[in-house]
Amino acid sequence: MSETGLNELRMIAQVAELLPLRRTPAGTPVAGCLLVHESKQSEAGLERTVAVELQAVAVGDLAMVLISGGPGANVSVTGFLAAKSLRSRAPVLHLNKIEFVEGN
Amino acid sequence: MSETGLNELRMIAQVAELLPLRRTPAGTPVAGCLLVHESKQSEAGLERTVAVELQAVAVGDLAMVLISGGPGANVSVTGFLAAKSLRSRAPVLHLNKIEFVEGN
Repeated sequence: MSETGLNELRMIAQVAELLPLRRTPAGTPVAGCLLVHESKQSEAGLERTVAVELQAVAVGDLAMVLISGGPGANVSVTGFLAAKSLRSRAPVLHLNKIEFVEGN
Repeated sequence: MSETGLNELRMIAQVAELLPLRRTPAGTPVAGCLLVHESKQSEAGLERTVAVELQAVAVGDLAMVLISGGPGANVSVTGFLAAKSLRSRAPVLHLNKIEFVEGN
């Protein structure tokens, strides 16, 4: 990925909902989940509490990794944002890396 | 920010819409915009075209920086995602860094 295409989100989150594993017509596994995140972040020099929910999807081997943690798993993830579909502009996080971490 | 609070998006995008500058009751400037991003990303070993739109906000001095570029500006940004409001869960990118870059 060149810098001109930079699109990378890194986030610690909890897998709040885990959708049933599905497969593409070619048989590739696809797992979807809802990630929830809470933290304190700094904005314009002030600390603020942040909460956000984000739909995420994992394809291929990573789908199996996501599923293996089950709902409630705490994860450190990396991925890129893409519009959900042509009809829905909601951003979805496409996971490229999932690490399970200890809960807070 | 500790790793437990990790929430960082880095993205190259274009400022598609720039909302009028407003101020908080305390007088702090706040600028909002719509960022649009297009790129190619790798997912499960395959390259795919990605498009996404994301609302973004800049507070304080950074609000003036965002405004200065005007609509159509190409930017490299860093920030964190937070829910838009208690009523809308849509993620909004809170900018911590804005760099103007040359267009493609």
